[in-house]
Amino acid sequence: MRGLGTRTVLYQQGVASTLGLYNQDYLSVDILREKGPITAGELSKLTGLATGSTTALIDRLEKIGYVRRQNDPHDRRKVIIVPEYEHKAEVSHTYHSLHTAMLELASSYTDEELALITNFLGKANIVLEEQIYHLNAASQSKTSP
Amino acid sequence: MRGLGTRTVLYQQGVASTLGLYNQDYLSVDILREKGPITAGELSKLTGLATGSTTALIDRLEKIGYVRRQNDPHDRRKVIIVPEYEHKAEVSHTYHSLHTAMLELASSYTDEELALITNFLGKANIVLEEQIYHLNAASQSKTSP
Repeated sequence: MRGLGTRTVLYQQGVASTLGLYNQDYLSVDILREKGPITAGELSKLTGLATGSTTALIDRLEKIGYVRRQNDPHDRRKVIIVPEYEHKAEVSHTYHSLHTAMLELASSYTDEELALITNFLGKANIVLEEQIYHLNAASQSKTSP
Repeated sequence: MRGLGTRTVLYQQGVASTLGLYNQDYLSVDILREKGPITAGELSKLTGLATGSTTALIDRLEKIGYVRRQNDPHDRRKVIIVPEYEHKAEVSHTYHSLHTAMLELASSYTDEELALITNFLGKANIVLEEQIYHLNAASQSKTSP
């Protein structure tokens, strides 16, 4: 599991570098893709970045057309960040090879086996999310005594 | 799977920041832990870092006692980098919480189910390793036409 973790990090760095993005920028784009449109404050919380850094990050991503800011249709006082990068050809092109290889791997398992694996990955996801929360809380309490 | 990837990256960043390390330094430490003692050249290839950056990285890690350089007992002309950080209390302390939570998750599965999941993770690992290789090869051919 830890070996997979290290490779995942290296893979993400490879994708970021292929797309000409900073690792942290790419990571935020990926969080946006998963969480859907969210506010800058929510993105800041999820990445652990300071508010000022998050603003600069959104500026950079908006400039290259990876995200766009818009008023929240449900609450006009809020501005949300909408991911746009999934439509970009260079992004789908970069992921295509991994996608194909993973589908091929999945096809060697039965439906029941895949259901079990997916279930496990979902739970591992929740465990990791809790751990990230604890880690951030611990390092914040250290910096502000 | 991609959600898990993003969280893994965030978790690793959290660990690195808790330990007061740069993300890239921490990643290299984790690669060393997995691959065992290797030469600076091999580490450079696995991380995709330039030779000079790898030397500076090893200097930093040696200074804080996370790795040490020694002559390869099998080939005196080579210098290998030996990971030392697993013995450090702050490292095992940081991982302890994730370790406990993952063991608890694993205990809810039967031995056969765990064997299947482990098998899948091992294969996903190989797929990712190949993808990293291709990504790096592609971005290198772009920078040196």
